Amino acid sequence: MKPYRKDCEYSYSLGMTLTFNLIEDKPDAVTNVYISPSLKSGEAADKLYQLCESYRIPITVNDKAFKILSPKENCYVIGEFRKYTSYLKYDENHIVLVNPSNSGNLGTIIRSAIGFGVRNIAVICPAVDFFDPKVIRASMGSFWKVDIAYYESWESYISEFSDNHIYPFMLDAKVCLHDTALKEPFSLVFGNESSGLSESFHSKGQSLAISQSDSIDSLSLPMAVSIALYEISLRRGIYRQG
Amino acid sequence: MKPYRKDCEYSYSLGMTLTFNLIEDKPDAVTNVYISPSLKSGEAADKLYQLCESYRIPITVNDKAFKILSPKENCYVIGEFRKYTSYLKYDENHIVLVNPSNSGNLGTIIRSAIGFGVRNIAVICPAVDFFDPKVIRASMGSFWKVDIAYYESWESYISEFSDNHIYPFMLDAKVCLHDTALKEPFSLVFGNESSGLSESFHSKGQSLAISQSDSIDSLSLPMAVSIALYEISLRRGIYRQG
Repeated sequence: MKPYRKDCEYSYSLGMTLTFNLIEDKPDAVTNVYISPSLKSGEAADKLYQLCESYRIPITVNDKAFKILSPKENCYVIGEFRKYTSYLKYDENHIVLVNPSNSGNLGTIIRSAIGFGVRNIAVICPAVDFFDPKVIRASMGSFWKVDIAYYESWESYISEFSDNHIYPFMLDAKVCLHDTALKEPFSLVFGNESSGLSESFHSKGQSLAISQSDSIDSLSLPMAVSIALYEISLRRGIYRQG
Repeated sequence: MKPYRKDCEYSYSLGMTLTFNLIEDKPDAVTNVYISPSLKSGEAADKLYQLCESYRIPITVNDKAFKILSPKENCYVIGEFRKYTSYLKYDENHIVLVNPSNSGNLGTIIRSAIGFGVRNIAVICPAVDFFDPKVIRASMGSFWKVDIAYYESWESYISEFSDNHIYPFMLDAKVCLHDTALKEPFSLVFGNESSGLSESFHSKGQSLAISQSDSIDSLSLPMAVSIALYEISLRRGIYRQG
């Protein structure tokens, strides 16, 4: 076992809860569960052993994997899974991230996407490695609920999903999300954390801005994505309580 | 100079842009600007020297402060400022964070608060140190635009601001933010990242939920705060473009 790298065949869920999410959502991809000898026995540990047995997942009890993959943290369970290929769905709504560069941000976006019912995420390269355990951890278990795929370029994405309605989010857009009815299936397009989307995206669809004060340069990328998803999910009338 | 600690009299802006924000917003608090000998000369450096001169801020050029305060990063400018006491305003809207524990989250919340026009933040102890340079950096320069203050307990906060309308955000609230007209001045109350608010907060005001899917346990704390602020700022009719 070596430290995680982008070209590894496997990735990892660091932690007990995350490993439960992994096994529940993608049991066929799981190749091993590492358990630290320091894991306290109890209900959660029993449940983990049972779950592994029922899916015939091998268990390894030693500290080695933890020293390599999670040297600094209080982590007693690691799930190992084979990386898999997902395909985005036609006729469904998408989030398109152009050149996202931060693993924590990407994980947070995945969490919010699931929170607001969008399950397809396109990642335009160059981009952060979405199988990085840091992305997976920041997703808080939502990672295995999305279909996420790389595209070499915007052109390769749009040639495949030419029926989607394109909404690039840009600070200098003339139209506010709040004043705009979105047609489905939509693709909400967001740029890189530092540089945003290039000017050319204004002509790729109806560019939209999120209403905010002039006192900050911009919202952070995960904030912008989450606020857009929230606003749209309200309008679609899903998830109303009360 | 020693590594930053909560009981230090000073805190720091790590980076050029952040240091410009510090000097522009709180010039009287700035005690020194450290410049690395590796800082490239140019327009930005010239502007920094001029700004320090006009405010009579001493400049120290050496690498020592950088090794102590920012050992791992590409940081060439550090601003040092004396910690100050802020007072929250009566008759204004507040965010109340009960026991926030993560410095990056707190910084992100400050950034969104400024983005949506709320400038008063109460922090109920125990809580993360809001002068931590990590908070300041995550705020992206918004830190010096808010009034932020610690309160020993919820009781000590509410006894001072008994005229504010209290809206605790709770996952099991029966009423959605989206369906509720908020009275001003309001206090939006959010709990700790892991544990949220205790049940008792249901009776402290009109508890509210943010509409979301059941597929995730909850939104992250900064997401919840930012979405609430966005929704409310739209209704208050500020910051509309287009």
